[in-house]
Amino acid sequence: MSPTKKRKRFYLGLSLFIFFSISACVRAPLNTVNQVSTIDALLAGSYEGQMPLEKLLNYGNFGIGTFDNLDGEMVVLDGQVFQVKADGKIYRPPLNLLTPFASVVQFKADYAFPIGKETDLKGLEKMIEDSIPNKNLFVAIKVKGTFEAMKTRSVPAQKKPFPPMTEVTKNQPVFNLGAVSGTLVGFRSPVFVKGINVPGDHLHFLSEDFKSGGHVLDFRLIKGTVEIDVCHQFYMILPEGGGSFSQIDLGRDRTKELEKVER
Amino acid sequence: MSPTKKRKRFYLGLSLFIFFSISACVRAPLNTVNQVSTIDALLAGSYEGQMPLEKLLNYGNFGIGTFDNLDGEMVVLDGQVFQVKADGKIYRPPLNLLTPFASVVQFKADYAFPIGKETDLKGLEKMIEDSIPNKNLFVAIKVKGTFEAMKTRSVPAQKKPFPPMTEVTKNQPVFNLGAVSGTLVGFRSPVFVKGINVPGDHLHFLSEDFKSGGHVLDFRLIKGTVEIDVCHQFYMILPEGGGSFSQIDLGRDRTKELEKVER
Repeated sequence: MSPTKKRKRFYLGLSLFIFFSISACVRAPLNTVNQVSTIDALLAGSYEGQMPLEKLLNYGNFGIGTFDNLDGEMVVLDGQVFQVKADGKIYRPPLNLLTPFASVVQFKADYAFPIGKETDLKGLEKMIEDSIPNKNLFVAIKVKGTFEAMKTRSVPAQKKPFPPMTEVTKNQPVFNLGAVSGTLVGFRSPVFVKGINVPGDHLHFLSEDFKSGGHVLDFRLIKGTVEIDVCHQFYMILPEGGGSFSQIDLGRDRTKELEKVER
Repeated sequence: MSPTKKRKRFYLGLSLFIFFSISACVRAPLNTVNQVSTIDALLAGSYEGQMPLEKLLNYGNFGIGTFDNLDGEMVVLDGQVFQVKADGKIYRPPLNLLTPFASVVQFKADYAFPIGKETDLKGLEKMIEDSIPNKNLFVAIKVKGTFEAMKTRSVPAQKKPFPPMTEVTKNQPVFNLGAVSGTLVGFRSPVFVKGINVPGDHLHFLSEDFKSGGHVLDFRLIKGTVEIDVCHQFYMILPEGGGSFSQIDLGRDRTKELEKVER
């Protein structure tokens, strides 16, 4: 081989090495639930945005959460952020908008199964639970389905001083979407995340036509496919500085508040 | 500038860029508590090692934990792992040894303060608590000090079927080390980590001469310096696969077991 060819080969090899090293670093690690703040901070009224959506997307292309000032329900699907506002419409928020609470993963299904019979939310949760070999890990849940009925809710943007979330959801707008196709997006978290995230299932919905969605209250699923991404890693980024997060009493058991707010 | 000089400059710049990109990726991120498994899994008897020490050190150069089969107390200081076994002696474990539970950080003090008066463990905990602006974050605690008295314990290696940790610590060896100089190594975790890590303070000790140490029960500190590294990020790696972790009931409140085991 001529010295010029050798040199060319060397630089080609070096370039490939650099490319893969950097891309491996930049890409969000698989099997990791990445979370901003804690659910109890949100319940207590810590609605100030903490992380820009642009940065959140570095941690994952799939997940749920809410927006600065609690302005609606977040669905992250295929790397796109959707905002289901209190008017029931879907918006595409600017990527410099902040989120006070969100969980995302770089979604890669470990297994999938079809839904062979009609089911409601509870039935689906049971099917998913039965499919999970290790209940002490996190799973991300993606269900593409055809629904006979879908009931969701959203939350309206709040102004300071922020009320606790149990106050906000007393007057939450509820949407009966009727027959609709779309995707359930969410997580099943192990019981020991109490105070940090929602133990058990937490699902949001986005319709196929991107026109409706929200925090899922119930549904009738006719047919669909469940995809499960088992996550054994959990990364939590807490709000720094002297904001409301630093002042909240996070020692209180907020299980009952969470139940009120979720259902 | 000649073309040769230009080219040299270009490659120098490129090399520096690559160097800093890769080293930033490889180094453990600052302000992050990195944890293997959960404290409640350990309390329940999940003592099988999960992560080699070599890998643990990639996540941080400072921290505490235990070893495969609960074989002693771990102190990680300046990137070195020390094993305080039940015989009271300090060992340097092979880096392929596994840990079932550990927390480490890449330690970088955010602030420091001297201890101006004699104090016991409770007094020190109070001083540290008073110094922390945000009690809902994690802090890593490093205290170099001269002690008039130091009382530690370790735990003996266990055999399967593993008993719960409350059984193990009933017969724990306790060491009254007398007057000794050395370093307290540990964490103060926010209250909402209940079930996951130890809420409040959890300190281990390593003597300056590397001859004694253990899980700290109490002491009389004459003088010393406290260094605090505030951590707003938390990364937890749970045991995968079908080991004991997958079988444990992690929904139980183990607060009382934890109190028995820690003190």
